[in-house]
Amino acid sequence: MVLKTSPLAPKKPKKLYEIDGVSISSVSSGIKKNFKEDLVLIKFDSPSQIYGVFTNSKTPGAPIVWNKSIIKNGKISALIINSGNANVFNGKKGEEALKKIITALSLKLSIDRKEIYMASTGVIGEPLDYRKIIKQIPFLIKNLNNTPQSWLKAANAIRTTDTFPKLYSEKIKFNKKENFYINGIAKGSGMIAPNMATMLSFIVSNISLDKNETKKKFDSFVEKTFNSITVDSDTSTSDMVLLILVKNKNRKKISYKKKEEFYDKLESLMTNLAHLIVKDGEGASKFIKISIDGAQNYKDAKSLGMSIANSPLFKTAMAGSDSNWGRIIMALGKTGVAIDNSKISIKFGKFFILNSGQNLLSKNLKKISSYLKEKEIEISVKVGKGSGSCSVWTCDFTKNYIKINTDYRS
Amino acid sequence: MVLKTSPLAPKKPKKLYEIDGVSISSVSSGIKKNFKEDLVLIKFDSPSQIYGVFTNSKTPGAPIVWNKSIIKNGKISALIINSGNANVFNGKKGEEALKKIITALSLKLSIDRKEIYMASTGVIGEPLDYRKIIKQIPFLIKNLNNTPQSWLKAANAIRTTDTFPKLYSEKIKFNKKENFYINGIAKGSGMIAPNMATMLSFIVSNISLDKNETKKKFDSFVEKTFNSITVDSDTSTSDMVLLILVKNKNRKKISYKKKEEFYDKLESLMTNLAHLIVKDGEGASKFIKISIDGAQNYKDAKSLGMSIANSPLFKTAMAGSDSNWGRIIMALGKTGVAIDNSKISIKFGKFFILNSGQNLLSKNLKKISSYLKEKEIEISVKVGKGSGSCSVWTCDFTKNYIKINTDYRS
Repeated sequence: MVLKTSPLAPKKPKKLYEIDGVSISSVSSGIKKNFKEDLVLIKFDSPSQIYGVFTNSKTPGAPIVWNKSIIKNGKISALIINSGNANVFNGKKGEEALKKIITALSLKLSIDRKEIYMASTGVIGEPLDYRKIIKQIPFLIKNLNNTPQSWLKAANAIRTTDTFPKLYSEKIKFNKKENFYINGIAKGSGMIAPNMATMLSFIVSNISLDKNETKKKFDSFVEKTFNSITVDSDTSTSDMVLLILVKNKNRKKISYKKKEEFYDKLESLMTNLAHLIVKDGEGASKFIKISIDGAQNYKDAKSLGMSIANSPLFKTAMAGSDSNWGRIIMALGKTGVAIDNSKISIKFGKFFILNSGQNLLSKNLKKISSYLKEKEIEISVKVGKGSGSCSVWTCDFTKNYIKINTDYRS
Repeated sequence: MVLKTSPLAPKKPKKLYEIDGVSISSVSSGIKKNFKEDLVLIKFDSPSQIYGVFTNSKTPGAPIVWNKSIIKNGKISALIINSGNANVFNGKKGEEALKKIITALSLKLSIDRKEIYMASTGVIGEPLDYRKIIKQIPFLIKNLNNTPQSWLKAANAIRTTDTFPKLYSEKIKFNKKENFYINGIAKGSGMIAPNMATMLSFIVSNISLDKNETKKKFDSFVEKTFNSITVDSDTSTSDMVLLILVKNKNRKKISYKKKEEFYDKLESLMTNLAHLIVKDGEGASKFIKISIDGAQNYKDAKSLGMSIANSPLFKTAMAGSDSNWGRIIMALGKTGVAIDNSKISIKFGKFFILNSGQNLLSKNLKKISSYLKEKEIEISVKVGKGSGSCSVWTCDFTKNYIKINTDYRS
């Protein structure tokens, strides 16, 4: 089945920067059919700082298990990514395949095995032919380079059922001569069989920062970005987000202000990459932002927001441009979070449909109906006077989602 | 939109029994369009025992709030049910509408207000025109009777988007002259807007039993039946299941054996009604039983089973007759329940596809593909050696689900 590019795809992928100290190459290993590129090597000139967030799945893939076991060391010298096979549920053989690849890379690059990370995405339960990967290592090493094109090629090579490559970048001016850059690539578009369309994201910058603070910031940004999106409520066995800070030769004192600017732009980049994943949601025709305000705390707000974002009934209503706020009430009700009905307000765009529990349906119905035909929808829900708030993002649920997921192997 | 009868509907509705001491009537009040019956009165000659389980929704309808406030008394003399309007999210006006109806019934029937229960299902957020209901009370009272036809009419009158009426009955022979009977009716077919297609079930028997024991049994049966089914993971604001034991004039000592027979048949009746709801799942073309074995405990088993049953990816695979066990692994992984991959076995019908972590895909693939084309599918998942097990039921997820829920108001 050939998938059409999502109607929500950006017109042009964002251009990434050259970052000193990092080089990339990609190749077709033959795991993916039709000679599509499916293997990426990212190499760091010297051991770099790494921060990672991994899937909570209790049936994780071999690469997740490996990465988790080495991340406490906090150092990375190389990252190898393959698409087409997730190396999940292959038992001992899966572990062996991973270790053979890591060992081969370690020998060829003369770097410590514990500084080599791996990510795999694609079919699950089928043995990963590690020989195909190992065979390409010399080529990958030979062709390492540092151009925007190599980032774009990498973003393409990690795609499985993604209908477009996902890239984003940010720049922070440091002084007249120097800049800090952040490059990020991602993949993911729901989960489609036999490929488990894992959410992967790799972010690289050349800034040098304090470890503990960066870890805290990164974790909180993941929570507010990649962990605040949903396509179909299903969770992959291979999800991971890595942030890598390349060692900066001319390490300089970075002011508080510059640091804050970096963190802001990092969050913005992660938000943008997360949005690109939703915009490539299987069958998606609308990008929907849901904001919750006035909850007791962030956790409650998130639980309410995600309940709406995951509700098949809400998502089908959006597909039909239907201002069916009853489904929002239902989704709020089923979370178990205590709510006072008389305090609920709901807005579609800037139009109230419910104000402090009062139904304003008739007044704004026409405006709302026309607003809901747009490609990007914002829904604001106020549930009380607490300070807990959040934003989550989802897409609508169309016949194409069912078509893609029903017919894929037939 | 006219909905076709579900392909999974039984050929003929089950015939219910006459139960002494209970009488029924139904009528069209004008809340539903096209003069369809939408109002039911069930009257008990003397106050009867009542047991109830209600929605956990934090945005419940006015009838739920009322019923919960009186059920501690444990007595019921009348039950009034309307369809077409759920009386949810109407604030003070919703409470007032309910109280006016209860008061009117209380006066006309000369019974205590606290012995009158109400259930409403249909549109939410629109005021319930209680005058239409009160106007019909004299007619309802005058036409009370006790025939199987009146049960069938009631089962029809409580339908909203159900494509067929849901009834079931059981008989327990007590002695040569007397029998105990259990009659049950239900409604529900997923949740369809603007109607929140609540799951309602009313079960009536003429047996006399110990209160505490019955309450325990009933709660555990609800957990294993109505709480073990899912159509779309959404939860209504008005769900309720009531069990009513009509006072038996010739109250006799019931042996342990007869009691056990009654409980078995009550569970069987509740199972059958729950299955009818799944078989009327929006767009359903397949009825799917998922059994979990070998979990640490029942709670873990249920969490794993419901995660599979609620996964859009699993449900679309079933619609496509696709033996995509990767989606089952994914659903097991995302619950947070600890699992040893090497112990997972999965069977489609009697065919293993995974045996203690070993993929047997190639061997049974043809047989499984043909099995998955059947209308009723059984999937058995073993996750370890624990004693926790459960069965849950769901339906597949087809284009028609999206069609029904997207196009309903357009």
